[in-house]
Amino acid sequence: MMTKKTYSDAGVDVARADSFVERLKRSSLREGHKKLWAGAGGYASVVPVSDDQAIALTTDGVGTKLLLACEQNNLTTIGIDLVAMCANDLLCVGATPHSFLDYYATGKLNDSHANALIEGIIEGCDQADMLLIGGETAEMPDLYQQGHFDIAGFALGMLSKEQLLTGAEISVGDTVIGVASNGIHSNGLSLARKLIVEGDPLRKELLTPTVIYVKPVVELLKQRKSNPSLVKGIAHITGGGWRNVLRLNKKVGFAFETLLPVPPIFNAIREQVELDEMYRTFNMGMGLVIISGEKPEPIIRTLKEYGLDSQVVGRVSDQSSTLSIKTGEGGRFETITLSA
Amino acid sequence: MMTKKTYSDAGVDVARADSFVERLKRSSLREGHKKLWAGAGGYASVVPVSDDQAIALTTDGVGTKLLLACEQNNLTTIGIDLVAMCANDLLCVGATPHSFLDYYATGKLNDSHANALIEGIIEGCDQADMLLIGGETAEMPDLYQQGHFDIAGFALGMLSKEQLLTGAEISVGDTVIGVASNGIHSNGLSLARKLIVEGDPLRKELLTPTVIYVKPVVELLKQRKSNPSLVKGIAHITGGGWRNVLRLNKKVGFAFETLLPVPPIFNAIREQVELDEMYRTFNMGMGLVIISGEKPEPIIRTLKEYGLDSQVVGRVSDQSSTLSIKTGEGGRFETITLSA
Repeated sequence: MMTKKTYSDAGVDVARADSFVERLKRSSLREGHKKLWAGAGGYASVVPVSDDQAIALTTDGVGTKLLLACEQNNLTTIGIDLVAMCANDLLCVGATPHSFLDYYATGKLNDSHANALIEGIIEGCDQADMLLIGGETAEMPDLYQQGHFDIAGFALGMLSKEQLLTGAEISVGDTVIGVASNGIHSNGLSLARKLIVEGDPLRKELLTPTVIYVKPVVELLKQRKSNPSLVKGIAHITGGGWRNVLRLNKKVGFAFETLLPVPPIFNAIREQVELDEMYRTFNMGMGLVIISGEKPEPIIRTLKEYGLDSQVVGRVSDQSSTLSIKTGEGGRFETITLSA
Repeated sequence: MMTKKTYSDAGVDVARADSFVERLKRSSLREGHKKLWAGAGGYASVVPVSDDQAIALTTDGVGTKLLLACEQNNLTTIGIDLVAMCANDLLCVGATPHSFLDYYATGKLNDSHANALIEGIIEGCDQADMLLIGGETAEMPDLYQQGHFDIAGFALGMLSKEQLLTGAEISVGDTVIGVASNGIHSNGLSLARKLIVEGDPLRKELLTPTVIYVKPVVELLKQRKSNPSLVKGIAHITGGGWRNVLRLNKKVGFAFETLLPVPPIFNAIREQVELDEMYRTFNMGMGLVIISGEKPEPIIRTLKEYGLDSQVVGRVSDQSSTLSIKTGEGGRFETITLSA
């Protein structure tokens, strides 16, 4: 029997990264900190600017998807991924994405690289209805290897108190709607790059840019103003895979029974990775999750108007902090369980 | 005669980086962009949240000072530099620094490195009266070399319309006050590392953390509320050296005649670098510049209360976009001129 690969084998230790993030969180519990509003899942930090208004802030990168972009000599869409990673996170606290800044560090500034990157960032900002308002370009000889660079994004969203998504309203029986991804997005690439090797025709597909869910979701957040239970929580499926849904509310669980189609790229990876590890690492065809206390049809219809496929994928359960997934892989049904 | 080194010889092309930043700026002139407030020198982007209130945003890194920190196996203060680079920039548009997020990317997460880094960031946030509200930790095997990493900071400040510094009020005859640096801060390190080589006892000094000017300057910005001409402009001396002052107002010039003491570290570098290149690259003992239309004594006194040395270093001149520096190096007086 073949040895299955885990994300840790690929050099990424999510558990240790998590514990570092926890420590960071504790370290930042300082006097002024209590003034922040608590947005669902810690997807973004929410800083009030008045009694009723706040701004949401988040930062993210695109991980080793960058290396794929360099290898394929195609940097035109990696900026879309960068904006997507930040903008989709802002939605999860109920914020409307507003502005974006980028940090671009490289060993030696290369005009054609820089232009391609910026092109993608501008395209991403268009898709996310955001303004590119600034950035830092750092030339750091000796730190980055020949042709290598890193990019990070910083995004700002705005929201009123009534728009804040805390996840607290999520209750047993609520509907879980899955919104389709278009492939691997920007997570699990360190593992995927090792399994879909250079020369494999699928390797090019790993570079497909992450879906930006902003426009339809902002529309849903508007509809929510007159109907708060329409959207009770939003989870962006990123690092940590489907476990991200558990961040929304620790008191409940989530039972997934009717899954979205799994893009072929994941089947190719699946041959070498255990099924539960797949769901812990990748989006498996579902890039965003919306929890609703209402009938799902208006949500699905709104998403469709913006060209996005979605469907009811499950229910909120009373199994706290437990995520169960009934997969129909290979004709058999198997339930896998993930915990936070 | 010895060949003098320039910053470009060290692998950093400031002119090309500038042109990239310009291009970026043009690319981002989109519909919504006009809604931003124009802060002096583009030190931070100022996004209004109401008719009277705005937030200021900036992002920065610490450049190759990181490599020095790794080499000296001392990461405890590089976080202070990171906060300083961002927080001091916020002051230049008149904002009060409020919150900070960090992006930390590394090949392999190392707990002791991460702890030391965060310690510095928390210390920096204390010095800057800022909250550490979030961050991203990215493990990127293959991108970063063994033991290498990069960090970027993202800072948020708040201001009212009357607090905004645009630089437009700066006029001929205004007083230029220089505030002391404590060494090289976080700029020009790619060159300095090549000239103050490993083994040189001064090399350790290159790691001295950047001064955070927040507390006294926020105090001055408060005093300015009842006396707007007390502070008409603030320039943080970073990449580009003293030319940063020219960013404040293109219609005037700046004549420096009575300079602050130059820390010994710069004299060691000076032996291999032309004098004008020194001022184009380094802070030369002056980390911050304040332009005032009032008597300087209250400003100098306030800075002193917070332990910072400052003095009148010159005047605003009618030589537009021209910076002249009368240096008394070696007993001779020489005037060097820098243009934007």
